[in-house]
Amino acid sequence: MSCPDQVGIVARVSGFLAQYNGSILEANHHADLEQGWFFMRNEIKASSLPFGADKLAETFAPIAKDLNMSFQVTDTGAPKRIVLMCSKDSHCLADILNRWHSGDLACDIPCVISNHEDLRSLVEWHGIPFHHVPVDPNNKQVHFDEVERLVDAADAETVVLARYMQILPESLCQRYRHRIINIHHSFLPSFIGARPYHQAHDRGVKLIGATCHYVTADLDAGPIIDQDVVRITHRDVVEDMVRLGKDCEKTVLARGLRWHLEDRVLVHGNKTVVFN
Amino acid sequence: MSCPDQVGIVARVSGFLAQYNGSILEANHHADLEQGWFFMRNEIKASSLPFGADKLAETFAPIAKDLNMSFQVTDTGAPKRIVLMCSKDSHCLADILNRWHSGDLACDIPCVISNHEDLRSLVEWHGIPFHHVPVDPNNKQVHFDEVERLVDAADAETVVLARYMQILPESLCQRYRHRIINIHHSFLPSFIGARPYHQAHDRGVKLIGATCHYVTADLDAGPIIDQDVVRITHRDVVEDMVRLGKDCEKTVLARGLRWHLEDRVLVHGNKTVVFN
Amino acid sequence: MSCPDQVGIVARVSGFLAQYNGSILEANHHADLEQGWFFMRNEIKASSLPFGADKLAETFAPIAKDLNMSFQVTDTGAPKRIVLMCSKDSHCLADILNRWHSGDLACDIPCVISNHEDLRSLVEWHGIPFHHVPVDPNNKQVHFDEVERLVDAADAETVVLARYMQILPESLCQRYRHRIINIHHSFLPSFIGARPYHQAHDRGVKLIGATCHYVTADLDAGPIIDQDVVRITHRDVVEDMVRLGKDCEKTVLARGLRWHLEDRVLVHGNKTVVFN
Amino acid sequence: MSCPDQVGIVARVSGFLAQYNGSILEANHHADLEQGWFFMRNEIKASSLPFGADKLAETFAPIAKDLNMSFQVTDTGAPKRIVLMCSKDSHCLADILNRWHSGDLACDIPCVISNHEDLRSLVEWHGIPFHHVPVDPNNKQVHFDEVERLVDAADAETVVLARYMQILPESLCQRYRHRIINIHHSFLPSFIGARPYHQAHDRGVKLIGATCHYVTADLDAGPIIDQDVVRITHRDVVEDMVRLGKDCEKTVLARGLRWHLEDRVLVHGNKTVVFN
Repeated sequence: MSCPDQVGIVARVSGFLAQYNGSILEANHHADLEQGWFFMRNEIKASSLPFGADKLAETFAPIAKDLNMSFQVTDTGAPKRIVLMCSKDSHCLADILNRWHSGDLACDIPCVISNHEDLRSLVEWHGIPFHHVPVDPNNKQVHFDEVERLVDAADAETVVLARYMQILPESLCQRYRHRIINIHHSFLPSFIGARPYHQAHDRGVKLIGATCHYVTADLDAGPIIDQDVVRITHRDVVEDMVRLGKDCEKTVLARGLRWHLEDRVLVHGNKTVVFN
Repeated sequence: MSCPDQVGIVARVSGFLAQYNGSILEANHHADLEQGWFFMRNEIKASSLPFGADKLAETFAPIAKDLNMSFQVTDTGAPKRIVLMCSKDSHCLADILNRWHSGDLACDIPCVISNHEDLRSLVEWHGIPFHHVPVDPNNKQVHFDEVERLVDAADAETVVLARYMQILPESLCQRYRHRIINIHHSFLPSFIGARPYHQAHDRGVKLIGATCHYVTADLDAGPIIDQDVVRITHRDVVEDMVRLGKDCEKTVLARGLRWHLEDRVLVHGNKTVVFN
Repeated sequence: MSCPDQVGIVARVSGFLAQYNGSILEANHHADLEQGWFFMRNEIKASSLPFGADKLAETFAPIAKDLNMSFQVTDTGAPKRIVLMCSKDSHCLADILNRWHSGDLACDIPCVISNHEDLRSLVEWHGIPFHHVPVDPNNKQVHFDEVERLVDAADAETVVLARYMQILPESLCQRYRHRIINIHHSFLPSFIGARPYHQAHDRGVKLIGATCHYVTADLDAGPIIDQDVVRITHRDVVEDMVRLGKDCEKTVLARGLRWHLEDRVLVHGNKTVVFN
Repeated sequence: MSCPDQVGIVARVSGFLAQYNGSILEANHHADLEQGWFFMRNEIKASSLPFGADKLAETFAPIAKDLNMSFQVTDTGAPKRIVLMCSKDSHCLADILNRWHSGDLACDIPCVISNHEDLRSLVEWHGIPFHHVPVDPNNKQVHFDEVERLVDAADAETVVLARYMQILPESLCQRYRHRIINIHHSFLPSFIGARPYHQAHDRGVKLIGATCHYVTADLDAGPIIDQDVVRITHRDVVEDMVRLGKDCEKTVLARGLRWHLEDRVLVHGNKTVVFN
């Protein structure tokens, strides 16, 4: 939930939950005093309530309206559907698939889309359909139209760009606003754009990083979900940085994706509140 | 606040606050499902309430009693009084004094107590009384009696052992339970006891650490507030580890002390909940 | 190479290499002044030498003898053969296999051995033979005999225990001394033995870790290759610690294994020199 | 030492040292294969040599000339002279002074220069002369002239900008090339220029950092010596970031300064080789 800040929000919400015997498993609040905005997340034991997610939302709606609040109710029993997009590099994709396959990542993966054939076998071994949608450099729109059709057909709640390496068209970014997650292989806002490890090598930095963020039309400028860094030395050439960076990329993407799937990430303006 | 977990605690507390127009600046909850225990911290804008800290506590008491809750109300306008204890090494003491002197650490420091004269000048430059209480190895109790008298006289809320290097008697630990903070120069529970860097060197570990914890009668076994580590290599001999460890020690102690001063640390059994 | 320290070792070795026009790509030295021991690693461009690895060793032998030096020449063109051992958890195994499959880890993997069937399909998808060798709790020796036979048959240079969860018999540890790598799911020497995350939870630590080490007969006490930690909070129950720890385990194991494969780890006594 | 890479450099240098019985305490090499450049640092036990630093340099000079090598011989018995410059914030200055005062940082500090009076007492308590050189915003050159005169008069080998907050004129940067060390309060190249914490807050990053670098005429673009980061959350406003960043700044500056004082930092182009 998020709404303009005022006295009594927590009392109203927790009073409502107590009224229906809702057992709070985890609660997080944040008051952004600069923006005058309030954020809240409550994790409630489903079996403690007398109704399901839909009825909960319906019953709570009048209070939300009263508080000028936007809110969302999610049933953790119904895993989110995510479509993964990749290119040739397997490290992020293999990492997510292994977590999912081990039961460590609660989601459904209706399909994987790629502009190359390379990772088909890896995906199919996991029992997930793989769609190869090639990119014609002279007419990329054909590719994007097919991607959009497949994402819509998969009824995807979230799209994860696991090193997909193509810039999505603005219209798609808009339609899936705050629902497309990218991993950028630099510590943003350093080294925006192409070949960030080459840029990092040229500048002579001593740490390289990775950034997990929501995709917006403005390249590499969307709300940041998580970041991390890894130390390098003068001995590391670009190939070493690529290799070391991979560990950072896959860890940061997995962490950001988990928080997104658990509805821990609230976007306000171009920034995120992450209740982790 | 902490109490047995049940439905409706947040509603009761936030309802109470809303009733008196209390504006919540920050709120943290934690339900320990294993222990069936609930923890809560609310930071309330003082000017939004119609009464002060004492009256707030008095008014809230019946609800607390009803919920079987232990609670504490602190007025951030009245800084806590902390007594620092040290020996010969200055890194932790100088770091805390600089933070306090720069206005970065909200507390009063009525005095510093040491078993050596070495740091007198540093302390007195900050305008703080320095008490030298020597230790007679054949009769340590004289030292501890005088320490206890000075701490009592200073009306100290908290005692900080900034590399004090003496083991406090059990009676003192009991009287100031969860109010004496120590920095141990290892990543506990590794290397309990004396000369942890020598122990670490002998074992050949690749990271060394520091642990900030509440002092109990059981040496190095009290509730942990914070820990951190720093990387070492085969090139680092004990002297290097001591030097590298100092940065870790002073940072971890300063962090743990800040959280304690801001009442962010709740102790339950031998573990802490840290609302940071 | 390693030998008693004395003046002139580097001059002898580098003089020898220069004599045969050997181009040094990377060189590392370490003089352990406490032990009076000297360690060295030279990476030489093979094509710059007039002979191969065997002849190099033969030609260098008299100098080594003269310096009382033990040394080893490895041809990076002939990848080391490693046998992986696992149980039911896939995170470490899948991570190593993905690195190998992506060409990021230079080694041959003649086979994987497990006491359970669970990971057969994952292994076989990578085109690697999978041997299921069950453990009879009443007669574990049968298992270990078969393991030893398979490792011997595979002509393995190194054995990697990727969460294998069985304690190897002393005889096997001795035969493959400094050639069996284990990942222990704690920051050793904390939480030696079984269920380290449960131990960590009971103690209330604020960081958990993983340790990559050579296996010796003394459980969890072998020479440490690498360690790392990850931050946890009071909210993390054992299941969370297990999940968070997995990322730490697989990263640390992959790092330690890489260094071992590149002959960057020299063991002396119970400690390692790691030229990374 | 640094020179164009070729076969036999180590042999020449170590042969020379062995000839005079020089006992190598620590040696580091680096061959930059992209640039074709070789870097080397040898730490030699002074008492093992038959001559002092000057004579060593003289005797080695012909070899260096032959190898087209630039080199430098430093006597660790003669501590480097560093002038500290600061403004109003004490955290970096107090940290360096405490390390120096504790004997943890081997250098002489002939004086501290500041454009404000605030830190005079702190400096003078350490027995170090303090020069207040005010800045006239309409004529900064008067300030810089006096600074240059004082630095020259102090016979300073190195100038450390411990949060000095003024941009030095190009001529001074040139004269003290690779001898002026600055701490920038961001993870460069992110947030170049003024108010980096405000920039970081606006962008919503999840880590903030600090960068220790040599000062060049091009603002915040000089060779980077060291960097580090600290994690922040949505709860941290700019004031929190400033406070958290201070710990990062002082640690990174102290680390970079130590490496510089120990001649571990070699600059090549706009990048550094750090033999730490």
